[in-house]
Amino acid sequence: MRPQHCFVTGGAGFIGSNLVDRLLAAGVRVTAYDNFSTGFREFLEGALRHPDFRLVEGDLLDAEALRGAMAGADFVYHLAANADVRFGTHHPRRDLEQNTLATFEVLEAMRANGIRGLAFASTGSVYGEPEVFPTPEDCPFPVQTSLYAASKLACEGLIQAYVTGFGFQGYIFRFVSVLGERYTHGHVFDFYFRLKRNPQALHILGDGHQRKSYMDIQDCITAMLLAVDRAEGPLSIFNLGVDDTIEVNQSVAWITEYLGVTPRLTCEGGRRGWIGDSPFIHLDTRKIRALGWSPERSIRDGVVRTLAWLEANPWVERRRA
Amino acid sequence: MRPQHCFVTGGAGFIGSNLVDRLLAAGVRVTAYDNFSTGFREFLEGALRHPDFRLVEGDLLDAEALRGAMAGADFVYHLAANADVRFGTHHPRRDLEQNTLATFEVLEAMRANGIRGLAFASTGSVYGEPEVFPTPEDCPFPVQTSLYAASKLACEGLIQAYVTGFGFQGYIFRFVSVLGERYTHGHVFDFYFRLKRNPQALHILGDGHQRKSYMDIQDCITAMLLAVDRAEGPLSIFNLGVDDTIEVNQSVAWITEYLGVTPRLTCEGGRRGWIGDSPFIHLDTRKIRALGWSPERSIRDGVVRTLAWLEANPWVERRRA
Repeated sequence: MRPQHCFVTGGAGFIGSNLVDRLLAAGVRVTAYDNFSTGFREFLEGALRHPDFRLVEGDLLDAEALRGAMAGADFVYHLAANADVRFGTHHPRRDLEQNTLATFEVLEAMRANGIRGLAFASTGSVYGEPEVFPTPEDCPFPVQTSLYAASKLACEGLIQAYVTGFGFQGYIFRFVSVLGERYTHGHVFDFYFRLKRNPQALHILGDGHQRKSYMDIQDCITAMLLAVDRAEGPLSIFNLGVDDTIEVNQSVAWITEYLGVTPRLTCEGGRRGWIGDSPFIHLDTRKIRALGWSPERSIRDGVVRTLAWLEANPWVERRRA
Repeated sequence: MRPQHCFVTGGAGFIGSNLVDRLLAAGVRVTAYDNFSTGFREFLEGALRHPDFRLVEGDLLDAEALRGAMAGADFVYHLAANADVRFGTHHPRRDLEQNTLATFEVLEAMRANGIRGLAFASTGSVYGEPEVFPTPEDCPFPVQTSLYAASKLACEGLIQAYVTGFGFQGYIFRFVSVLGERYTHGHVFDFYFRLKRNPQALHILGDGHQRKSYMDIQDCITAMLLAVDRAEGPLSIFNLGVDDTIEVNQSVAWITEYLGVTPRLTCEGGRRGWIGDSPFIHLDTRKIRALGWSPERSIRDGVVRTLAWLEANPWVERRRA
């Protein structure tokens, strides 16, 4: 479908604000909704100067405000989430509230406004610890290993039930980790700022051999826009990622090379960085590729572009703390 | 594991009250917790005379009451749920609150009490409209087709995350429909009472050819007790059902034969009884059979025993209304 006026939850966040810019550039009206718990007004500096852009500060759990803000939109990109994957067990209610309940409120606000098209940012973590690599969308029924992924799976189920029960059209994207401009959490962020403070030493969680796949933010957004434009049928589920993987050790090497430092490296040990961390994520992306998409940037490009952005925007670390 | 003191949520319900009786007969202490939204005190008449039984009236969303009531137990059977599968779209918040949120509160109350063993009544409906029959536990990643099943899947995910994150031991049972004494909802109930009122005519949703599998309540409870006793490892997921299936038409024939009536039958038409209804449910139960379980009662036995119980307990229809 071709949306005319998109409502973007988490519109001031990493992925959300980049999507907002791309939608505006494509001539689409945009309303961004964000509670600024992790988003930044600075990410919307360009958008705020655009006549087709509107920013609403609000919380997804405020059903009335959400319903009102959504009025007039014809499609929803639901990107707002608690993305603090690692510390789920420190506050188990957070993923439930900010992901599962928030998604329910988005769906209900859509229903109240007669909006039926929804794109949702899920995660490759819903595959738990898969036995099939690269992991396709229809791999064996997975077991959840983190509160974050469990909450994202709950969101997927809700969306699917609204597709069947209320005639919604849903697009679910299962991401690998995303890198690029406005990236504000994850290991490249942590390693960069820790090495800026202390170039002598770096301690790595896990054994450094955890394999991960990353994709660049612009490739990620291109894939979402293309899927919404081209995928037919009431429900479309797509893995988004690149075909290669790297070890955490490899990204550490790129980061130290970029910074020109040679820290003493120590490892925590163990296959996982933390409880619920997947030691290996590698998604089968043949389904989205069959629509005509392919990533234009390598993992290394993504890491280096992220580092360049962090270097140009050191304020993001202070403001995030 | 061998629990000494079981906490049974939904203990006054169909499956819960039957489980309570079996646990007490096996010498296990039992605390039943129920808000009597769909349970009946009459179902616990026998249990209430037993010295090892305690009934606590309370709601799962009342976190403090739940935590207090659970104190002293060493294992939880979480059976309470909104089981109104069919009308989920009439009140989408109900499945979210009574299933997803209630299960979260059960898990948090367990954590507060240092209880780690949990058995959970999920549903074969989490398989959506499967492409593999009979459907095994590790069938391809399913798509949800009802708010009820979506909420049960969300519960499964939460339990799995607590297994990984908090060292819980979880037993998840995916049921077919269950029949037998104290059965208070579903098509056998509806057809029985409608034919008692009007033996001349019966209208059937769908085309009557929807295939379903049913299991008897006592076989169901035997399977759960056996799995908790014998299955090892932190997480066990079992389908529970029988190997044969019947068409809705077949159970109608048994019911009319039992009642000695010959109504004019009419069909709504369509493959599904309602939106989100699965036209065919047939679970692969090899996994639970490998532990030494097999059902002792046929589907026909289950239907006839249900009818005999409804005949002896006509109050259940009036009280449910």
